[in-house]
Amino acid sequence: MTARLLNGAALPLTDRGVAYGDGLFETLAVVRGRLRLLPLHLARLTRGLERLQITGLELAVVEATLCTLAATVLDSAALKLIVTRGEGQRGYTPPADPEPHWFVQQLPWTPPTDHTPPAAVRVSSVRLASQPLLAGLKHLNRLEQVLARLEHPAPAVDEVLLLNGQDQVVCAGSANVFCVRDGRLLTPAITDCGVEGVMRASILQACAAGHIALPAQVTTLTMADLLNADEVFLTSALRGAWPVSSIDAQPVRPGTVARQVAAYWRQQDGSSPVRVA
Amino acid sequence: MTARLLNGAALPLTDRGVAYGDGLFETLAVVRGRLRLLPLHLARLTRGLERLQITGLELAVVEATLCTLAATVLDSAALKLIVTRGEGQRGYTPPADPEPHWFVQQLPWTPPTDHTPPAAVRVSSVRLASQPLLAGLKHLNRLEQVLARLEHPAPAVDEVLLLNGQDQVVCAGSANVFCVRDGRLLTPAITDCGVEGVMRASILQACAAGHIALPAQVTTLTMADLLNADEVFLTSALRGAWPVSSIDAQPVRPGTVARQVAAYWRQQDGSSPVRVA
Repeated sequence: MTARLLNGAALPLTDRGVAYGDGLFETLAVVRGRLRLLPLHLARLTRGLERLQITGLELAVVEATLCTLAATVLDSAALKLIVTRGEGQRGYTPPADPEPHWFVQQLPWTPPTDHTPPAAVRVSSVRLASQPLLAGLKHLNRLEQVLARLEHPAPAVDEVLLLNGQDQVVCAGSANVFCVRDGRLLTPAITDCGVEGVMRASILQACAAGHIALPAQVTTLTMADLLNADEVFLTSALRGAWPVSSIDAQPVRPGTVARQVAAYWRQQDGSSPVRVA
Repeated sequence: MTARLLNGAALPLTDRGVAYGDGLFETLAVVRGRLRLLPLHLARLTRGLERLQITGLELAVVEATLCTLAATVLDSAALKLIVTRGEGQRGYTPPADPEPHWFVQQLPWTPPTDHTPPAAVRVSSVRLASQPLLAGLKHLNRLEQVLARLEHPAPAVDEVLLLNGQDQVVCAGSANVFCVRDGRLLTPAITDCGVEGVMRASILQACAAGHIALPAQVTTLTMADLLNADEVFLTSALRGAWPVSSIDAQPVRPGTVARQVAAYWRQQDGSSPVRVA
């Protein structure tokens, strides 16, 4: 069934979004009326819809709605899109022909600048569970991230670093992680857990295309790799590239790459929306 | 903040229940006005609230509400209770003093009988991820179960059997698993994944107290253990003890223990509600 845009401020209590976290979300940065990294958001959303077998969401309508809302933003704001499988009866089996629900919330957000203080991060004791079927997606099952933030809440802690069961670095609570070593940009593979961030994808694309003049490599990273790196930074749609100054109070070397990446990200203001069929 | 019972049929779009699956649920069987296994439901809910650090839910009020609703059920029904952390702003960190939300839905349900056909189950290709911090809880992050049911939907498939990454049996999609071997009742440990079902807990208690005349053991079970068992059955608050007749079309030996356990469960109609402080 074609998805329904929820108008008003409420979700039906029988929505599978709340019953099972059966859905996806995207949080988009808007600067002076333009959506940043929109094609990458829509691409990730499409992957999620496919993986969860949620059909009926007309991406062109979603995109047009986001652009219309963004156009009213004179300065900056975040738009949060949530898509659920829609209403259901008791039980995990979805209805035969569900009507997905979607809605958009406009939230306050101010873009970071080169004067934004670097991040002092803490390593979470929460180890991300390995679930390749859900890895990479921005789905609505986020209790691990909630537990991590209950342990180290914002704003006292800028971000939490999340490791997997093998003590490898995966990502931050709501950001991806990069480090610089020997003139290369390194970031963990997102194959068993974690979210494939749009800013991470944008950087990997920009490196491959030569717009960022460093080679990038998706690899395995340990805490020792981060602490010995030439530079560490976090990336997300709302934070751009955010330098890390310390991990569990151990200092991390400052560098210049995060600032270059942040400048590249700010240019994305002008990226024209790409139509997704 | 004290939790708020949502009246009406809608959840605020800013509720963390839909944003992150940040909450818990219980599905209770009601027969002729009485709630089955209520103390065990409330005990599991309490464990979940503690683990997720959701405070402010007055359990005595929840219990009284459930009992009031149950009293109106002349025949049988299911009551589904959902508790969320309440509304929040952007980001995983909960508000300083959130107001949890809760609501109860009455759903159609008919108790199984000794004439209910046994379950033909299929093994899911979804392997449950290991997350000891969430294991046992009936939380709202249920995408693994949804994926398992997308693969083998009800009612064509009675239930799906879920294994962990080591190919050990954990539970069914919405039930626990028991088998009988050498006069003992065996069920998998729920330490790394899966839900600690109230019916499972009731059986373990009844065996320990001698109300069920078999010793019970929480252990590790493989598919071979189930296929070679004297009997296999599924347990849940709504299904009681449900004999399994086949797993992936391989026949499972029929037995008499599930029927004895089911009879014990039906007696629970008369169990008087226990007050939880």
